[in-house]
Amino acid sequence: MDKKELALAKHAEWKGKLSIETKAPITNKEELAIAYTPGVAEPCLAIEKDESLAYTYTGKGNTVAVITDGTAVLGLGDIGPAAGMPVMEGKCALFKAFADIDAIPICIDSKDPQVIIDTVYNISKSFGGINLEDISAPRCFEIERTLIEKCDIPVFHDDQHGTAIITSAGLLNACKVTGKKMGNLKIVISGAGSAGISIAKMVMRLGFGEVILCGSKGTIYDGAPYNNPEQQKMAQITNRKKLVGSLADAMKGADILIGVSKPGIVTQDMIRSMAEDPIVFVMSNPVPEIMPDLAKAAGAAVVGTGRSDFPNQVNNVIAFPGIFRGALDGRARKITEEMKEAAARAIASVIPEEELTADYVLPDPFNPLIVEKIAAAVMAEAAKEKEAE
Amino acid sequence: MDKKELALAKHAEWKGKLSIETKAPITNKEELAIAYTPGVAEPCLAIEKDESLAYTYTGKGNTVAVITDGTAVLGLGDIGPAAGMPVMEGKCALFKAFADIDAIPICIDSKDPQVIIDTVYNISKSFGGINLEDISAPRCFEIERTLIEKCDIPVFHDDQHGTAIITSAGLLNACKVTGKKMGNLKIVISGAGSAGISIAKMVMRLGFGEVILCGSKGTIYDGAPYNNPEQQKMAQITNRKKLVGSLADAMKGADILIGVSKPGIVTQDMIRSMAEDPIVFVMSNPVPEIMPDLAKAAGAAVVGTGRSDFPNQVNNVIAFPGIFRGALDGRARKITEEMKEAAARAIASVIPEEELTADYVLPDPFNPLIVEKIAAAVMAEAAKEKEAE
Repeated sequence: MDKKELALAKHAEWKGKLSIETKAPITNKEELAIAYTPGVAEPCLAIEKDESLAYTYTGKGNTVAVITDGTAVLGLGDIGPAAGMPVMEGKCALFKAFADIDAIPICIDSKDPQVIIDTVYNISKSFGGINLEDISAPRCFEIERTLIEKCDIPVFHDDQHGTAIITSAGLLNACKVTGKKMGNLKIVISGAGSAGISIAKMVMRLGFGEVILCGSKGTIYDGAPYNNPEQQKMAQITNRKKLVGSLADAMKGADILIGVSKPGIVTQDMIRSMAEDPIVFVMSNPVPEIMPDLAKAAGAAVVGTGRSDFPNQVNNVIAFPGIFRGALDGRARKITEEMKEAAARAIASVIPEEELTADYVLPDPFNPLIVEKIAAAVMAEAAKEKEAE
Repeated sequence: MDKKELALAKHAEWKGKLSIETKAPITNKEELAIAYTPGVAEPCLAIEKDESLAYTYTGKGNTVAVITDGTAVLGLGDIGPAAGMPVMEGKCALFKAFADIDAIPICIDSKDPQVIIDTVYNISKSFGGINLEDISAPRCFEIERTLIEKCDIPVFHDDQHGTAIITSAGLLNACKVTGKKMGNLKIVISGAGSAGISIAKMVMRLGFGEVILCGSKGTIYDGAPYNNPEQQKMAQITNRKKLVGSLADAMKGADILIGVSKPGIVTQDMIRSMAEDPIVFVMSNPVPEIMPDLAKAAGAAVVGTGRSDFPNQVNNVIAFPGIFRGALDGRARKITEEMKEAAARAIASVIPEEELTADYVLPDPFNPLIVEKIAAAVMAEAAKEKEAE
């Protein structure tokens, strides 16, 4: 049985990767009368008087909805809501395994951003947080932004921010390993979708240096016509020299290359054209923009990918469990930029400086310190914001 | 600590009566690669090609959403969506405890029937069935009817049908105990809300006899002005003699009284005015329309209530777990009238005829035969319908 067949057989055996268990014993009439009528009326009345008691008397404070419309599932594209469910269930399983969060998989049968926004908002009181997943760009930006404004619980589109946070953590450590000084670095990002844009924002925020984004037609620059309003915005704050050209043109002299685009589009010559000791994170999956051995042979000092069989894996499971753990426990109303930055620094800090090497700038996803450190950092930010209020 | 304090303390201890567990082990990279990327792509692609495979590769076939808008929670009324959640969690716990179904509690933050319909429909592909709960009448009728038409999974408003099914089961056995012959019985129902109307429909369908519905202002009759379109419809098919009068007037000579109305509104004289050996199901909660000892002293042959501390408890937990177990396992698209009738007969059949007494016409809710018999009966109906297609 090959790996694909094994995955299919296991899924058929599980018939769903989640099960819902009851924490309240219900084996006789006395127990029934506490967990259900008439006893259950008491917490209902308490919450009616003070809605914040939902965090005391229901599972709200430990429950996250994992919601998709099935339009950008893994690298498979728009496969529809029902077909996206195995991934949502998987994500929920990760929430439990890594952060002991009760996560509920939900797919929405509409591609209309307004319908998705309304539907998610209408059910949002059921949860303590919302993890948007596998929603295609540029719709995902509007959906996330509007839901963050409307909802009184944290809303987080992991595809945008998760990769950005983990990549940033990897870059922080890679700069230490290579001795590159943050501030004046030149960073090229191949891929101008939701992940690429989110990474661009984060590396700028963290002060790595100047960013040039490249889409499938070349550099994103101010003055070009864009259908995507997010790309339009990015054109105004990146690529300050307004370089018009290909990815290869952009990469000349760059210190850092980040790939969230397509397999095999980066050549060894392109790596050779970069600045000394370049840092290369090529995360196209399952085949990266350039294979790590080729990148290294062409002079890359640090190489990261999205794959578990190479060093420095940017695995999304590193970020979201701890971020939601911290946001829930800190009762954060939003996941702020400060929290994301704190999460990136927390991830980087999991590896002690003396253990950092070119092949070890990101921790193993199963390192239990990750969730602990991120959650503490996010909670500290949440506490700061409450003080400032 | 009194019972109310105990219920509150227990709910605070649980912080939610449900937990979501993972059936897929995720303790290392190999397991992660099966339950999540890249392995999870295989079931996604399979479902994209054939959506019915969602029942094979995801939890859809064992998952029911328990959904409320918080407008008619227990006897507490419109306490809002967040305050309704302890009941929804409790209901989900019952689904698990009684029928091993994974149920997800969801509250909707809108009272607009169309918004509720759209929201539930938009997320319906995530589940194998939908249990509507504690939605006020008459909105609940339109919401259930429209969702049944739109969704390709069973939709069931338990407050309407559950009580009707269990009461009918009790009446079937009570007729055996009293020797009353079905067909020409006179049945008076006190309470013309969703439960009363649903009971009326069911006892007529099962052929007990003629029904008179009584609302707070007296008998429901053809020709009176009704704001509630469901009552209008019922006026045309019940009370054939067009009796205009009070509940006391309606009860004269009646064989069966069913109360789903208010505490204490039935007197001993009203019971004495009924036909010989009357059957009385008084289910106002926690205080019935007349206390069982008073009803018996006035001549009632069989008395049932909604309370666990009296015989013949109409406990809603008797019906819905088996009905959904059967509907899910039989892959029913709808829960039909035939299935509801089969469920009522299945419940009645749990007590062997030789064991039937006036104080034992309904089985103990914890009798494990109940779910087994209902599920088998519902599955048999589902199979009949598939053959007929």
